[in-house]
Amino acid sequence: MSAIASAALKARVKRPSMLKKLCSPEDLLHHFPNGSYLGWSGFTGVGYPKKIPTFLADHVEQNNLQGKLRYSLFVGASSGAETENRWAGLDMIERRSPHQVGKNIAKGINDGSINFFDKHLSMFPVDLVYGYYTKDKPSGKLDVAIVEASEIKEDGSIVPGASVGATPELIQMADKIIIEVNTSLPSFDGLHDITMTDLPPRRKPYLITQVEDRIGTNSIPIDTEKVVGIVESDYQDQTSPNTPADEGSQRIASHLIEFFEHEVKHGRLPANLLPLQSGIGNIANAVIGGLDNSNFKNLKVWTEVIQDTFLDLFDSGRLDFATATSVRFSPDGFKRFYANWESYKDKLLLRSQQVSNSPEIIRRLGVIGMNTPVEVDIYAHANSTCVMGSRMLNGLGGSADFLRNSKYSIMHTPSTRPSKTDPHGVSCIVPMCTHVDQTEHDLDVVVTEVGLADVRGLSPRERARVIIDNCAHEVYRPILKEYYEKAEFECLRKGMGHEPHLLFNTFDMHKALLEKGSMREVKW
Amino acid sequence: MSAIASAALKARVKRPSMLKKLCSPEDLLHHFPNGSYLGWSGFTGVGYPKKIPTFLADHVEQNNLQGKLRYSLFVGASSGAETENRWAGLDMIERRSPHQVGKNIAKGINDGSINFFDKHLSMFPVDLVYGYYTKDKPSGKLDVAIVEASEIKEDGSIVPGASVGATPELIQMADKIIIEVNTSLPSFDGLHDITMTDLPPRRKPYLITQVEDRIGTNSIPIDTEKVVGIVESDYQDQTSPNTPADEGSQRIASHLIEFFEHEVKHGRLPANLLPLQSGIGNIANAVIGGLDNSNFKNLKVWTEVIQDTFLDLFDSGRLDFATATSVRFSPDGFKRFYANWESYKDKLLLRSQQVSNSPEIIRRLGVIGMNTPVEVDIYAHANSTCVMGSRMLNGLGGSADFLRNSKYSIMHTPSTRPSKTDPHGVSCIVPMCTHVDQTEHDLDVVVTEVGLADVRGLSPRERARVIIDNCAHEVYRPILKEYYEKAEFECLRKGMGHEPHLLFNTFDMHKALLEKGSMREVKW
Repeated sequence: MSAIASAALKARVKRPSMLKKLCSPEDLLHHFPNGSYLGWSGFTGVGYPKKIPTFLADHVEQNNLQGKLRYSLFVGASSGAETENRWAGLDMIERRSPHQVGKNIAKGINDGSINFFDKHLSMFPVDLVYGYYTKDKPSGKLDVAIVEASEIKEDGSIVPGASVGATPELIQMADKIIIEVNTSLPSFDGLHDITMTDLPPRRKPYLITQVEDRIGTNSIPIDTEKVVGIVESDYQDQTSPNTPADEGSQRIASHLIEFFEHEVKHGRLPANLLPLQSGIGNIANAVIGGLDNSNFKNLKVWTEVIQDTFLDLFDSGRLDFATATSVRFSPDGFKRFYANWESYKDKLLLRSQQVSNSPEIIRRLGVIGMNTPVEVDIYAHANSTCVMGSRMLNGLGGSADFLRNSKYSIMHTPSTRPSKTDPHGVSCIVPMCTHVDQTEHDLDVVVTEVGLADVRGLSPRERARVIIDNCAHEVYRPILKEYYEKAEFECLRKGMGHEPHLLFNTFDMHKALLEKGSMREVKW
Repeated sequence: MSAIASAALKARVKRPSMLKKLCSPEDLLHHFPNGSYLGWSGFTGVGYPKKIPTFLADHVEQNNLQGKLRYSLFVGASSGAETENRWAGLDMIERRSPHQVGKNIAKGINDGSINFFDKHLSMFPVDLVYGYYTKDKPSGKLDVAIVEASEIKEDGSIVPGASVGATPELIQMADKIIIEVNTSLPSFDGLHDITMTDLPPRRKPYLITQVEDRIGTNSIPIDTEKVVGIVESDYQDQTSPNTPADEGSQRIASHLIEFFEHEVKHGRLPANLLPLQSGIGNIANAVIGGLDNSNFKNLKVWTEVIQDTFLDLFDSGRLDFATATSVRFSPDGFKRFYANWESYKDKLLLRSQQVSNSPEIIRRLGVIGMNTPVEVDIYAHANSTCVMGSRMLNGLGGSADFLRNSKYSIMHTPSTRPSKTDPHGVSCIVPMCTHVDQTEHDLDVVVTEVGLADVRGLSPRERARVIIDNCAHEVYRPILKEYYEKAEFECLRKGMGHEPHLLFNTFDMHKALLEKGSMREVKW
């Protein structure tokens, strides 16, 4: 334990005994034997540990240890590309859950070198505390949790940075804890509402009835005897700029705004709507941008990740309060956030992902949930994870937490995506999803730039017609209609027409894409 | 209003003004024009109205009105075959949700004459109150709710019979209410815990932390001005005898008991387990029977439907308390229940289906959820509804409410079922489910008479191996292994091997069944 505390660090570590654990990453190397089970803080690329993962990657690289130090890595959602993605490139990941972003890690998952499983983000921390992911270890615990803190309080508890994620549960389940105190960020003290996980039969209700309700503490309690080292960190979260809204996503946004207005008019939504959940990406940004140009005000947000566009909504006075498990701003967004801290800090609250994504709370609040899929089928199932049924993108995330439980479960997608040879080579509306993450029992609305299909209360055959007519691209509308009509004819004839399919041809559009470069080349 | 109140009826109707509404079914005919939206009480074939539906069916039959009086029919789950199934046979059902049982109704759904949609049973009553199912009606309401009561209290509120189901919400949403007071059953007063549905943003937590907790009232409040008629009913619920456990289901039960013992030993379950949810059918009966022959005691049940086997568990002193939304006993079971009313009544509680199936409560209590599917695939998706992807059986029911939210999500199934020509012609373990109702992110355990696959924390490729090895029938183990190995080879080679599939051959076992009479005739 050789490191000397900087003034900046001393200002952040309020418990003197913790400063005695200050050390450099190399002092901690012996805690990381091959095969260890590790937990990292972090969620959607913010609040993850940086110094130790970078040191370990350097260590592997410099000593040619690729494939010899492999870990089971559990993080609430994705961490930073410069850490876990670099680890994947150095063959340092044996197992990973429940969500990830990065080219190398996706490559490892899809070439069989990484055992990845995705799980509902609300459930991952709970299953972890149940011991489901460590059941084959004699200790039943994670070996080490590495967590980033923006402050350590007098009682030893830690104040996270821009995300809470699964950090409370990773700490609960860890044999040893390493804390990276990040002095390049402001302390986030007061921005969090922290709850730990009880086990049944001793679990209690989450007594939240408004998005701004607090039910926990400001910081995460720590068993300080488990802390084996503290490291000062001076790296910022490496986020990327926002994806700008394009014309298609603006059209989607305007269909949705019109739908919300319709629902308000018919008394099914209050004038200030209900708490909004919005995913990541250019459609999500366009929807939030669209709200900023609408007549809606006094809006509230109950979501997983808060992004730049919400700052605009705060600044225009339309958004009263937002809560999530992470704030993932662009580099410019973070600058703006820190510069105007005082005006934002009382309108924001970060919770653990178990709470932000809790079915209990999402149902109670009547959230409006909006997500983007890989593909949606004509009966309103959706694929959120696996291209062609097999190739993992990033993982399920919280999509099913929200889409199963929201009052309004909305899938927004462009009607097509380009293939290599055809700007409309891939239809996002297909006869049958090649992988199902959201079922037909979960979705209320499907919307593309073409239009909106309101499938509430419709039978599958009614749903197919309205999704094809309202959402499919004009190139694919006749193709899907032909499929549907053939399937309906065949299945009704056989007395199996509840949800008509040509089961042995249902993926022929995908086959045409593979073999001929475009789904439009299909022949039924 | 011509009917004369019997002494039995007077004893059950404590509000004198309600007796003035006593009438015969024919007096109420004018409330049922073609195209009406109707709600019925009832759940899993108990507590449904009998007199009015039977009268309307007689009316259609006697006047050759088949196809001329068609209704949209909403019931919490299935009602009695002699009512809704007879209606289907007389072409009286235009639309039906969310669950049904009966040959004629299944025929209508699959030949296209009935628009059926299934929905999570926890969600159906809520979406109804949101106005989602009546949004195309000017009134936004159901026209008539027909509900069975075992008593009417002084304040006009009604005491249901053997089920609560969606009755509170059907009553909330009805323009007119007709009550069938059933004098052939005892009054069930005291056996219910009734909650009504608030709308967001005014919805409150369900403050239930133990299966026996009460949060509501004993009876369902009624706006008595909406009551257009009361009819005395003397028909009992027409239930059928229990399906006895066979050897295969007893083997499944013993695998599960062994698994529970293992979990207790490793500290992941308390010695008296956690609240049990058990579906309908011979496997469910065998599991409950198996618990009765085990060392477990002080058991509790949080489920959807209470069946005969639970009476055995009460009688042997192993079961402390059971709560559900219906008690569906066999005719002999009901006799036993009524005969020993005093010994059961304080150990039983019936709630609305929104509460019995509530994700909020199921997660909080850490329920052990067990269900039977149509088929499960090698990656642990399950099909609960549509044979060959298209032919509807009964509907989703509460399977996904429990399997998504339980602490232990368990699918139990025979490894095979007979086809017409082969006693093992249908494998219940398949490469890809032809319809997905439960996703790979929802299931923890798959069990057949062959063995048990514990898939917690496994990647899809690991899952496939353990499901094929432990659960597939010996006839299908090599067949599935060959599929899996080919798929793995092809997909890893192409860098899409997270969840390997031969996408364009994935339903070839189903094709072999159709074309050659048995799935074992497949050639990959």
